Amino acid sequence: MLPQLQERLDALDARALLVVAGTSRDPDLLPFVGAARLTKAVVVVPQGKAPHLVYFTPMERDEAAKAKAVGCRVLSPERLDLARWIRECSTMEDLLATVLGQAFLHAGVAPGRVALAGRGAAGHVHHACTALGGDGWSFFSGHEALAGARRFKDEVALTEMRRVAEATGAAFYHVARVLRQAAVDPTGGLVRGAAPLTVGCLKGEIAAVFATADLEQPEGNIVAPAEEGAVPHNQGTLERPLRAGESIVVDLFPRGRLFADCTRTFCVGVVPPPLRAAHRATLGALRLASDKARAGARGWDLNQDVCAFLEAAGYPTHRSHPESLTGFVHGLGHGVGFDLHDAPGFREGDQGEAGELLAGDVVTLEPGLYDSDAGWGVRLEDLVLVTEAGIENWTPLPYALDPHEWPATA
Amino acid sequence: MLPQLQERLDALDARALLVVAGTSRDPDLLPFVGAARLTKAVVVVPQGKAPHLVYFTPMERDEAAKAKAVGCRVLSPERLDLARWIRECSTMEDLLATVLGQAFLHAGVAPGRVALAGRGAAGHVHHACTALGGDGWSFFSGHEALAGARRFKDEVALTEMRRVAEATGAAFYHVARVLRQAAVDPTGGLVRGAAPLTVGCLKGEIAAVFATADLEQPEGNIVAPAEEGAVPHNQGTLERPLRAGESIVVDLFPRGRLFADCTRTFCVGVVPPPLRAAHRATLGALRLASDKARAGARGWDLNQDVCAFLEAAGYPTHRSHPESLTGFVHGLGHGVGFDLHDAPGFREGDQGEAGELLAGDVVTLEPGLYDSDAGWGVRLEDLVLVTEAGIENWTPLPYALDPHEWPATA
Repeated sequence: MLPQLQERLDALDARALLVVAGTSRDPDLLPFVGAARLTKAVVVVPQGKAPHLVYFTPMERDEAAKAKAVGCRVLSPERLDLARWIRECSTMEDLLATVLGQAFLHAGVAPGRVALAGRGAAGHVHHACTALGGDGWSFFSGHEALAGARRFKDEVALTEMRRVAEATGAAFYHVARVLRQAAVDPTGGLVRGAAPLTVGCLKGEIAAVFATADLEQPEGNIVAPAEEGAVPHNQGTLERPLRAGESIVVDLFPRGRLFADCTRTFCVGVVPPPLRAAHRATLGALRLASDKARAGARGWDLNQDVCAFLEAAGYPTHRSHPESLTGFVHGLGHGVGFDLHDAPGFREGDQGEAGELLAGDVVTLEPGLYDSDAGWGVRLEDLVLVTEAGIENWTPLPYALDPHEWPATA
Repeated sequence: MLPQLQERLDALDARALLVVAGTSRDPDLLPFVGAARLTKAVVVVPQGKAPHLVYFTPMERDEAAKAKAVGCRVLSPERLDLARWIRECSTMEDLLATVLGQAFLHAGVAPGRVALAGRGAAGHVHHACTALGGDGWSFFSGHEALAGARRFKDEVALTEMRRVAEATGAAFYHVARVLRQAAVDPTGGLVRGAAPLTVGCLKGEIAAVFATADLEQPEGNIVAPAEEGAVPHNQGTLERPLRAGESIVVDLFPRGRLFADCTRTFCVGVVPPPLRAAHRATLGALRLASDKARAGARGWDLNQDVCAFLEAAGYPTHRSHPESLTGFVHGLGHGVGFDLHDAPGFREGDQGEAGELLAGDVVTLEPGLYDSDAGWGVRLEDLVLVTEAGIENWTPLPYALDPHEWPATA
C-alpha cells in the first residue's frame, strides 16, 4: 500500500502524511507498524520515503522495534530528545506541536502541505496543527488518501484477514451448536441446563471462541432477537432470554490485526411465515449480489440491483421508500480491512475508485429485511475477496435459519 | 461529574464542551452516553445545560436512546436534517463542519470559545474547527477539563469499576491455577497436557474469563516472561513457552464501561535469589505506598518515597538514575476510570489537583523492578479507592511469586 499512498500524496501535492494515533489500534496507524502495540504514537510518511514512527516512552522500545519488520524507521524518545521537550513545554498540546516539528525535522519534511490522519486527542491535534501553521505547515484531511491506499493489502494482511474470517466461521458453528442443544420450555423460552439461554450466554460463548484465536471485538457484536434484531445496529440486551420462533440476528466483526465481518440469522423451532419469506428473499438478494460482484463493478450499482430484486419481491427498500424503517433499510456492503468500514464504499456518493470494486478488495455483501412492528429482522452477510472473475467467499457457512440444519463443523 | 465539568467550563470562559468521538468507546464520550454504543457520535455540553448527543444513522436510534437514562438529550439525524447535509456537502470534513454548526444551533451554543475533546478523525476535526473559526467559534483543548471532571465518578460508575476489578481478580486466581497445574519437563519448560504452556495459552485462558464477565481488553494485556517482562510495556510473545525459575509478569487491564488494572508476578519452581530479593523490595514499596496513600497526598510525593525506599534497598530508580533501564524505571501509579490512564497523575508535572489524590479517586499503586541484562522483571500493582482515611484495596489478591501459595479462590 505504500506505493499507492505515495501516488496519492503526489497527487495532493503533499510533503507528507502525518498520523497522530489515538490508540494502539488506530486503523490509520496499523498499516505502518506491523505487530507493534504502542500507547501513543505518531507516524510521518515523507513523500517518497519510508514511514517514520515516533513513540513516547523508552519502556515501549521492544514494541516499537516490531515496526521495523514492516519497513518502518523508528525514532526513539532519546533521538527526539523528548525528556527535554517534556520539561520545557507547559501543556500537552504545546508538547505535541514540538514533537511534530521534531518528527518533521528528523524525517526530512520541510514546511508545506501535510495530509493529516489518525484519531489522536482532537483538542491537542487541532492546537498543534494550528501552531505549526505559524511555521509554514498547513494541514488538510489525509483520511481519504490513506483509506484509498490502505485497501491495497499485501499477502501478509490478506492471510491475516482469512485467519480472522475462519475463526468467525468457527464462532458461528459454535452458536448453531449451542442453539441446537437448547431445550424449549413450555412457554417457548430456550433453556440451557436449568437456566434460560440469554443473549448474554451466546455473547459469552462467542467471546470465548475468539479469545482462543487471539481476536478482539473492539466494536462489540450483535446478538439481537426479534424486536431487537428488527433494528439493524441494535447489539442486543444481555439479560434478554431467547425464545423459539423468533429471529436471532448474529453479526460478528472481530479483529486480529485486521477485521472480518459476517452475519447469519437463526430461528429455533417453527419459523413464522413472514420470517421464512424474508429469509428466502434475503438469500436471493445475497446470491444476486454475489453473482454480480467482481472487479470493475460499482457497489452502488449492486445496491440498486438488490433494491430492484427486493422491491419485486414486495418489500420496501431505501430506494423505493427512503424514510422507511421497514424492509431493506441499510447499504448492501462495505470494504473491510484495518478498519471495520474501509474502502470501497457502496454508497451513491462514493465517487470513482472509492465506489468501485477492485481485484484484491475484501468487502461484505449484506442484504437484510426488517419489520419493527412485527418484531423480526433477517440479515445474511458474507465476507468476500473480489477477483477479476467474481468473488471468493471467505465465510462459506450455511445460511439456514434452523440450527439443526447446520452441520457440526465446516 | 457534570457539576465539576460546568465549573471548569466556567473557569475557562467556554461556551461549551465539544466531543467529537472517534470510536464507540472513546473515553471522552463514555461519561455522557451511558450504555449507548454508537459508531459515530458528537456530544455538545453547553455551559450550564445538559449534554446533547448527535448520532449519525437512524439505525442506531435504540442505542442512542440509552443515553437518555444518564440525562443526555438526543438529537436524531432527522432532527438535524442530516440527509440534506450529506447531499449538499462534498467532503466528510465539510459535512462535519456543518453538523457541528447545526449541533451548536440546536444545543443553543452561540459563537465563542469552545473546549474541544474526543478522538475523532484528526483531519476532519481540524478542518471543521478551522472552518467554524470563520463563523466566530474558536477551539482550545478541552481534554484536561474533561479529564479533571471525569475523575469524579458517581456510584454507578464506581460499582461498575468494582465489578471489573473483581473479575480481574478472578482471572488472576485462574492464572495461578493454570500455572500450579503445569508440569515441568526435564529441560525446565512448563507443560500442560502434552504441549508446552505458552504465553498464548495463558492469554487465551485470561480472555475466556473476561468474556464471561462481558469485559473487553482494548489495550491487550501483559503476560511477559523473563527477558520480556524485564521491559515494563512488553506485552509478551504468544509462541514463547514458559519456563520454571523465570519471572512471569501478568498485568491485566480489562474494560467494562470503565477499566480496572492489576499486576502480579509469578515464578514456578525455584526462585533465583535476585528475583526473590526484588520481589521482597517491590512488595515493601507497595506496602509503603499503600500506607501513605490517602486523600490529600500527592502522587509525586508517594513516588519519591518509593524511590527513596528502593534506593535504600540498593536499586537504581528513575530518580537516582534517570536514564537507567534497570531498577524502578516507571511511575508509581495513575488514576483509572473511563480511560486506563486518567486523573490523577503521579508525575512531577501534574500540578495542583491533577497531581493530588482526592477521596473517591481510583488509582493504581504499582512499584516494579527490572533487569534487562539478567532477564527478569517484577511488578506488583493494586487498584485502590482513595478515602479520607487511606485506601480501600479493590484487588486484595495474594502477592506470592509461587502459584502454589495462592489459594484456589478469593
